[in-house]
Amino acid sequence: MARNSIGKNLVLTSFGESHGAGIGAVLDGFPAKFSIDFESLKRQMARRRPGQSLLTTTRSESDEVKFLSGLFKGQTTGAPLALFIANNEQKSGDYDHLADVFRPGHADLMYQAKYGIRDHRGGGRSSARITAAWVAAGALAMQWLEKQDIYIRAWVHQIHGCTMNEVEHMPSLSEIEASATRCPDSLVAESMIKAIEQAKADGDSLGGIIAFRVEGLPMGIGEPVFGKIQAELGLYLLNINATTGLEFGDGFKAVNLRGSEHNDAWIPHDQQLATSQSNHSGGSIGGISNAIPLTGKLAFKPVSSIQKEQNSIDKQGQPVTLQVNGRHDPCVVPRAVPIVESMLALCLMDLVLEHNTYKS
Amino acid sequence: MARNSIGKNLVLTSFGESHGAGIGAVLDGFPAKFSIDFESLKRQMARRRPGQSLLTTTRSESDEVKFLSGLFKGQTTGAPLALFIANNEQKSGDYDHLADVFRPGHADLMYQAKYGIRDHRGGGRSSARITAAWVAAGALAMQWLEKQDIYIRAWVHQIHGCTMNEVEHMPSLSEIEASATRCPDSLVAESMIKAIEQAKADGDSLGGIIAFRVEGLPMGIGEPVFGKIQAELGLYLLNINATTGLEFGDGFKAVNLRGSEHNDAWIPHDQQLATSQSNHSGGSIGGISNAIPLTGKLAFKPVSSIQKEQNSIDKQGQPVTLQVNGRHDPCVVPRAVPIVESMLALCLMDLVLEHNTYKS
Amino acid sequence: MARNSIGKNLVLTSFGESHGAGIGAVLDGFPAKFSIDFESLKRQMARRRPGQSLLTTTRSESDEVKFLSGLFKGQTTGAPLALFIANNEQKSGDYDHLADVFRPGHADLMYQAKYGIRDHRGGGRSSARITAAWVAAGALAMQWLEKQDIYIRAWVHQIHGCTMNEVEHMPSLSEIEASATRCPDSLVAESMIKAIEQAKADGDSLGGIIAFRVEGLPMGIGEPVFGKIQAELGLYLLNINATTGLEFGDGFKAVNLRGSEHNDAWIPHDQQLATSQSNHSGGSIGGISNAIPLTGKLAFKPVSSIQKEQNSIDKQGQPVTLQVNGRHDPCVVPRAVPIVESMLALCLMDLVLEHNTYKS
Amino acid sequence: MARNSIGKNLVLTSFGESHGAGIGAVLDGFPAKFSIDFESLKRQMARRRPGQSLLTTTRSESDEVKFLSGLFKGQTTGAPLALFIANNEQKSGDYDHLADVFRPGHADLMYQAKYGIRDHRGGGRSSARITAAWVAAGALAMQWLEKQDIYIRAWVHQIHGCTMNEVEHMPSLSEIEASATRCPDSLVAESMIKAIEQAKADGDSLGGIIAFRVEGLPMGIGEPVFGKIQAELGLYLLNINATTGLEFGDGFKAVNLRGSEHNDAWIPHDQQLATSQSNHSGGSIGGISNAIPLTGKLAFKPVSSIQKEQNSIDKQGQPVTLQVNGRHDPCVVPRAVPIVESMLALCLMDLVLEHNTYKS
Repeated sequence: MARNSIGKNLVLTSFGESHGAGIGAVLDGFPAKFSIDFESLKRQMARRRPGQSLLTTTRSESDEVKFLSGLFKGQTTGAPLALFIANNEQKSGDYDHLADVFRPGHADLMYQAKYGIRDHRGGGRSSARITAAWVAAGALAMQWLEKQDIYIRAWVHQIHGCTMNEVEHMPSLSEIEASATRCPDSLVAESMIKAIEQAKADGDSLGGIIAFRVEGLPMGIGEPVFGKIQAELGLYLLNINATTGLEFGDGFKAVNLRGSEHNDAWIPHDQQLATSQSNHSGGSIGGISNAIPLTGKLAFKPVSSIQKEQNSIDKQGQPVTLQVNGRHDPCVVPRAVPIVESMLALCLMDLVLEHNTYKS
Repeated sequence: MARNSIGKNLVLTSFGESHGAGIGAVLDGFPAKFSIDFESLKRQMARRRPGQSLLTTTRSESDEVKFLSGLFKGQTTGAPLALFIANNEQKSGDYDHLADVFRPGHADLMYQAKYGIRDHRGGGRSSARITAAWVAAGALAMQWLEKQDIYIRAWVHQIHGCTMNEVEHMPSLSEIEASATRCPDSLVAESMIKAIEQAKADGDSLGGIIAFRVEGLPMGIGEPVFGKIQAELGLYLLNINATTGLEFGDGFKAVNLRGSEHNDAWIPHDQQLATSQSNHSGGSIGGISNAIPLTGKLAFKPVSSIQKEQNSIDKQGQPVTLQVNGRHDPCVVPRAVPIVESMLALCLMDLVLEHNTYKS
Repeated sequence: MARNSIGKNLVLTSFGESHGAGIGAVLDGFPAKFSIDFESLKRQMARRRPGQSLLTTTRSESDEVKFLSGLFKGQTTGAPLALFIANNEQKSGDYDHLADVFRPGHADLMYQAKYGIRDHRGGGRSSARITAAWVAAGALAMQWLEKQDIYIRAWVHQIHGCTMNEVEHMPSLSEIEASATRCPDSLVAESMIKAIEQAKADGDSLGGIIAFRVEGLPMGIGEPVFGKIQAELGLYLLNINATTGLEFGDGFKAVNLRGSEHNDAWIPHDQQLATSQSNHSGGSIGGISNAIPLTGKLAFKPVSSIQKEQNSIDKQGQPVTLQVNGRHDPCVVPRAVPIVESMLALCLMDLVLEHNTYKS
Repeated sequence: MARNSIGKNLVLTSFGESHGAGIGAVLDGFPAKFSIDFESLKRQMARRRPGQSLLTTTRSESDEVKFLSGLFKGQTTGAPLALFIANNEQKSGDYDHLADVFRPGHADLMYQAKYGIRDHRGGGRSSARITAAWVAAGALAMQWLEKQDIYIRAWVHQIHGCTMNEVEHMPSLSEIEASATRCPDSLVAESMIKAIEQAKADGDSLGGIIAFRVEGLPMGIGEPVFGKIQAELGLYLLNINATTGLEFGDGFKAVNLRGSEHNDAWIPHDQQLATSQSNHSGGSIGGISNAIPLTGKLAFKPVSSIQKEQNSIDKQGQPVTLQVNGRHDPCVVPRAVPIVESMLALCLMDLVLEHNTYKS
């Protein structure tokens, strides 16, 4: 299929641009007779919304999700759920100065090269605004997974030079939400705030790392050999804007261990075949979940939109200097937390549904 | 589709087990009238083959590729290419002691949990032996890409504590093949050999990191928004056995830079719209290739098969101690280099073919 | 993927219900820089719209297509086109008497059985109203195909007992539109009108056959072996509501010929490899187009909504008699003509784009 | 995906050519722990095999199915099943006279136009020989469906002018196999034999119609809106070589009925929601099975290979007369019966597995 859809059993089709009529998604394959918790959906949407704190852009988008289809008396019917978020506050004029130049770090030039045409307003299709609809769809997937006792949580592990210690448990939502940074370590969170404020003052931007953890996933989810759980997550998570790296369990540090140190020894368990007291694998072996928490980290580059003057070229291929105006986040990582959770949820729900096909 | 196929326009379907009749693949979508270089194919196969050096397992598999279909007088016909590699040296008896126990680090228990049955001989379907057919298919993709002046190369960047410096160019094949480690830095390669030999002597195993670089990829390859080039590569590369992390360009280190440091400034170019003198992005922005070399790294955990005694459980869920016999690699990373190249080639060729659909 | 999407390179994702907020579609994979002819789109939409003649339902839906995404200054950008048609005239109350009973011939009971829930208003998801968005998407595909000199036309060949003679040429649009029946044979059209009026007077309904013809399709379109052009068309056309049969070329009558009569002899042609003076094959051999006009017929059962009293059951499984109120077409076949053209266009454009992947 | 695969949950990937090493298929998604009945598989293979009666070609292919993967101790493991049938009796020399000419009715010219190259030996990839592997895969699907009490049967309904009466029940296998024609009406079967013998004597060929019936399919199978059960069957069945038309239930004759005659009235049923005493719909409404037997017919054109002299062109586009030698069936319809059953089984099993995903 063309590439604005993702998933096999639960298919998310994305559409929309930053400054068109709006952005949205069609979520197909969601089981019928599910009662949506609309308040919970709103709360998750609010976590991605711009303007939620002084650390983020001052653009104030309401991001209200309208269901165009798929519901009957508040329940899903098995028909596709079309979600739509209107673009209310379109200050397209802010982008007039970018119609003929290509911003470094942004996809402006790539779209021009690929399609021979581009909607320059707010990045058009390449804008991270389109992830609002993913978060809406992902919130529904999270609700469904929670009914299966599968819980997903992401948080900010690092921003620029500020890094928290590894955690071996699930941080609570209140710990994460205690700081606008979404870092559950309050001391590190404070230094992150200072770093972001300094970057903002400098007209510059920062990147960071989001950690995630999934608990309750039963053994057996994930499809060998080309639907390995970590590979499918790779597809979903690396499609999030600005990501540059992904690791599971010990990740790149696994290289520093010997096999005898890395292998998670099996021990008896009273409800499933076995479990382990260590979790180097990060929740899957051979592409299949092992019922130990699924853990990983996702790296984000610093925001490409900076206030500083930069060198680039224009449509005629001539060198120019440009300064990007508009209201941009100095660091999007805190706002990306619900996006990461959503992509985790959409991917895992797809694989759980897939595993159902085997039940005869 | 079920999950033993990968790709949209160039579809690789994998089949086979370690100790069945053989392993193979069907490669569908390969353009017609392409003359295969069989000698080049053999050379690439030899790089993955067990028994190629003292560092690897002493199992000696010939890995001869038989084409069951798709060729006529040495040329492709547009019909699917079925590739088959017979399992010649099946010492299944080596695995009898593993029929009732689950090896830590291996997928034994996961297959049992998922399917309620498993072929315990040599890991069955979860064996990395099945990647031999991927390498064969990938070698054909590499040949096709080279005709388009797109060149792929991977090498060993790190093994356990031994790490080479970053390279900003394409190492030559002879530099890479100069050492059995496939590390192009000869001094680091020597220390890697010592580390591997020591691990082998200890009955233990090591992991490592493979770096890769693609040159010649034109601007515009990759499909927004859910077919981003790095996400598709995530799907392909993280489906390789034993991988634990993946990064592109500056990867996780991008987090340490500010936007003003990370953005690659565009400068004029005489043949394409623009280029850049830096390459923090690793070859793509917004999911689309930018005609700057595509670069990245892939982490492998240490081999799960070790000679040391380990704790685990048996089929009845009772604790056991087990010692894995058989002839295993103390470090598979050097042999994984052609596998990484193949997955890169299959993915990129798929995306190049996809981009062709837009030409009307 | 879940099953509300169709197509591989040009993917149509359908959403919406008869009495929800509206119905729509996302069309992904449409090439960039295409200027849409909005007037032509409106004309095609008007051909499917209810209330267009006395023969059809008196429901008056405006069916105005709103583009939610994918356009910039009237041109496509390569981003998905989201099309939306609001449900303006929702007289859901008309359907209250159907909430607890299952209409014979309709999918009411099937949805209840499959999903355990159904939106009974106007048939909900099973309503043919959702094809309005297919017609919109198909109109764009037709415009694109016409730029490649590929022309699609469908017309009414038979209604109940009234059948026109076979045509060996492309009827003109004006011949087809001359009658509200969309039968280009004016005499037969008159008898069709009488038959429909009589059925309407009786509170009954009629079915019919739509013939179609595609000219200009080059040789080589269609993908062996499971993407044969006629099989792909089977998937697209038999997904149209109320269809019961499909044939190509001589179709079922081919059975009455011997091979020596059915084989189309090749004769030289000055622009392509060859052509034939006969067209028993209906435009493809072995699944691949042969550059002879593609011809076929699609059968529609009589409309299930009739005013007559019928026997059925209610939700408790008890026998009931029911009479379906509401404003229904006594014969939908004339309005189905643009739906057939749209599905033909979407399918053929998908296959033309697919054939492009081979160009390297 | 490229187009030699079919199915979503149960994926059949076809490979091979008439005169290469062999033909085969990979069947992915088949549930684990299923014990294959190999004798039953052989019997079904024998029904498609050439040389089974005086009515068919005298080519004697053994068509022995070798399992290259996916089995362990006679049971499926959840891994893909690779099936291979070697080409034993390759008299490629028989086809030398066809290397430079294009047979009318065959796909020779189409492959040349599409790919610029073709394997002329026995039709290469376009040969119906490749359906042997579909029959093998379909036989496994039939076995699995029978365990779910779903039974599939096809038989010859018409050959040229010889037509049996409609049947309203499932003919027994012995009734069907009583005649080499596979027509369960013994009197009609005799006249069919005479017609075939006469065509053979004349160096000519005949087509026919295969009827099919599926019993035991529960209510709710089939996926709205683009996975309607009859549309999916359209995709599967019209990919069978030489098919020209397909209808379900009353099919094209439904056009002759009014709605009040065609609607199947629901009546109470003690085990499911309802049933009907009539079956005009042919087993599905709105794309979803209604637990009434699924019925339909598939038309086959007369065999393209005839012994008579025909006009055609050669590779230079010059007119030639050609006579096709080799051992061909005067009528393939009896041998196509197991092919039809196999495609029915593969499609229905795919949809049954799909329906499983909804179970949570």
